[in-house]
Amino acid sequence: MSNVSSLATLARTASRALSALSASAKDEAIEAIARALLSHSDAIANANRLDMDDAEQAGLAAPLKKRLLYDASKIQNSVVGLRSLALLPDPVGRTLMSTEMDEGLLLYRVTCPIGVIGVIFESRPDALVQIAALCLKAGNAVLLKGGSEASRTNRILSDIIAEASLSAGIPAGWIALLSSRAEVDEMLRLDESIDLIIPRGSNAFVQHIMRNSSIPVLGHADGVCHVYVNEEADPSMALRIAVDSKVQYVAVCNAAETILIDRSIATNFLPALANALAAKNVVLHGDDEARAIFPMETVDDWHKEYLDYEVSVHIVAGKDEAIDHINRYGSGHTDTIITENKDIAERFLREVDSGSVMWNCSTRFSDGYKYGFGAEVGISTAKIHARGPVGLDGLVTYKYKLYGKGQIVEDYASGKRTFTHRPIPDEGKS
Amino acid sequence: MSNVSSLATLARTASRALSALSASAKDEAIEAIARALLSHSDAIANANRLDMDDAEQAGLAAPLKKRLLYDASKIQNSVVGLRSLALLPDPVGRTLMSTEMDEGLLLYRVTCPIGVIGVIFESRPDALVQIAALCLKAGNAVLLKGGSEASRTNRILSDIIAEASLSAGIPAGWIALLSSRAEVDEMLRLDESIDLIIPRGSNAFVQHIMRNSSIPVLGHADGVCHVYVNEEADPSMALRIAVDSKVQYVAVCNAAETILIDRSIATNFLPALANALAAKNVVLHGDDEARAIFPMETVDDWHKEYLDYEVSVHIVAGKDEAIDHINRYGSGHTDTIITENKDIAERFLREVDSGSVMWNCSTRFSDGYKYGFGAEVGISTAKIHARGPVGLDGLVTYKYKLYGKGQIVEDYASGKRTFTHRPIPDEGKS
Repeated sequence: MSNVSSLATLARTASRALSALSASAKDEAIEAIARALLSHSDAIANANRLDMDDAEQAGLAAPLKKRLLYDASKIQNSVVGLRSLALLPDPVGRTLMSTEMDEGLLLYRVTCPIGVIGVIFESRPDALVQIAALCLKAGNAVLLKGGSEASRTNRILSDIIAEASLSAGIPAGWIALLSSRAEVDEMLRLDESIDLIIPRGSNAFVQHIMRNSSIPVLGHADGVCHVYVNEEADPSMALRIAVDSKVQYVAVCNAAETILIDRSIATNFLPALANALAAKNVVLHGDDEARAIFPMETVDDWHKEYLDYEVSVHIVAGKDEAIDHINRYGSGHTDTIITENKDIAERFLREVDSGSVMWNCSTRFSDGYKYGFGAEVGISTAKIHARGPVGLDGLVTYKYKLYGKGQIVEDYASGKRTFTHRPIPDEGKS
Repeated sequence: MSNVSSLATLARTASRALSALSASAKDEAIEAIARALLSHSDAIANANRLDMDDAEQAGLAAPLKKRLLYDASKIQNSVVGLRSLALLPDPVGRTLMSTEMDEGLLLYRVTCPIGVIGVIFESRPDALVQIAALCLKAGNAVLLKGGSEASRTNRILSDIIAEASLSAGIPAGWIALLSSRAEVDEMLRLDESIDLIIPRGSNAFVQHIMRNSSIPVLGHADGVCHVYVNEEADPSMALRIAVDSKVQYVAVCNAAETILIDRSIATNFLPALANALAAKNVVLHGDDEARAIFPMETVDDWHKEYLDYEVSVHIVAGKDEAIDHINRYGSGHTDTIITENKDIAERFLREVDSGSVMWNCSTRFSDGYKYGFGAEVGISTAKIHARGPVGLDGLVTYKYKLYGKGQIVEDYASGKRTFTHRPIPDEGKS
């Protein structure tokens, strides 16, 4: 058996034991990991310094180096994150539905861990700590592969997490670190032992993962988010929201990349918008009609995700053309409409086929923490399982548990007994 | 554009309009389909007779011919099914979660249609009517491919459904019938326009679909279900449940294929079980230990799904070995434990990694109708999205709708405003 395959088998075995752990056992292990990070803070920072030195010599770009850095202050952030995660309710064992099928024949739909999760992320070492702890909280085993630039930092972090959790009573093998691209490719083929893949990183990277695995993938390749300024918008509100959606933080997936404006208001609204964005150093790209109203660059591709101080502008005939444009060129991530007309807003919210659809607020709100989930596993643009910002409940699934007293189906088939199908009152199973 | 690709594009367009339909519009269309089936009953039966004649000449096996037959009585059954489907609550537009993020910034997680669903099924024409209506009820467009033996029956049924639903105000293009295997292969590659594939049919057929599509698949390849008789079982209850699980209907996926027996009770229990099963004409296959206790055939493969009057018997050391065996050889479908010991039962329910896990009742209970869902889309052995018997809620997904009054993220980032994250009381959005 290959290395990856044997790690996956160990992880599968560990996951069975994880599924039986109490909430407090998992939370104590998360606290033990937090304490271990603090007590090994110097060793972690030293390992990270070696990675940073290599990055320096390799001429890594400044933003990448910033992401790679994992110093005492970032360790402290991770510890704060771990401790707030420990305080969240256990996502496992929640009863989602219950039915008395007959007297003494009780059906429950109950959340349970998914099993073994494969996580692939780029440079940020804090992602390793966060995702490992999220998996543990949800009772899942995890195979991790981080960016090679962070190999020393990732190695010491995963060793510390494995050791601290083992001391806290978590079964060995629940966490493992892969070390090469070849191992990732092998993991993507292990559809018998890996239940879910979570890729975190650039567009091209995530697309590669999505196309090369028959294992379900939780994530998003890109965030081509739209602000649609309807003719019935309050212009000053539209300006504030468009500017915030674009510039509040340009490098993230929920930043706006395209602004759609109704033709009937474009002559007045577009120059005001262009000036407001120019004041924030945003370069505008427009279609011919927009460029006839205000001088700006051309648009190469309506699918473009700038992730920078640039934005595309498109003039539309009205709500239908706006909705069509978004469904055609968007990425199903986050789209907002600005209008005072409730009917038009409801139509937009219903027909735009995205994980988060908004009315009169900024696209930048679509985020697990801002949504109040207390944690964010990622943002999913898939249509099924978990969609939009994903909290801890994206790391669990459910099973049906049926409690009987000897019932057989023949008694119902013969008419000797009949189903009652009554909801079970809230006190749950006895 | 190819035929399939253009049908998928039309279906995508129709699905946007479907998502906006009221519950009553969809239910009226389902009733219109029911009436159209009745009024075209003779034409349908005639088309089916031609398919049956061909099947006769081609020497189709009797069980397949029985499945292919779609006469007045089966049409009547479809009509009853459609009318009870129309009475079920609308799965679309349910609020699953709501949060006041701040005063006037209201977040809702709301169910919505998935979009375009591809359904591939074998001979039964009634499956076409049922699955098309389920998709319509959930607001999805559907591309269908039935067995070629039923081509005339399927063609007239899909024409009648398309026509009746169009007259009832449903957009054209929401339903389309594919006619060749090549078109199915093409559909499996259309991951941009098809959101979910539902295959219904034999093990090999479903496995082929699952392995040849990057589109999510809802279904199960096989049902290798287990009855585990623990040493603390009530022997007469164990006998009744084992016999019912095996023989109540042998040709279905939730029938038991393997019976596991604790070693400590095997000498007494196995002969009683063997006699009870033999009385129902069940052929037993056992491991060496079982065959030393009672004469029976050998076991070829613990993964074997007999779907017939045959069953495998395995003697185990206890609950741990039973759970390991099920997790290794089972198909994640349905498994039951017979025991009077609640702790052992709870451990089995937790650690057996299947969609339905049961205590002291028959595996034959795992079924959408018996579970009280009112409809069954299929049974899923996937770990995510929908697991176990799947009702109408397996045909919807959700989106987040955020209602604002001009809020921007910068006000929260700067500390000018803070999130409240309060649940919204049950009256829902105003």
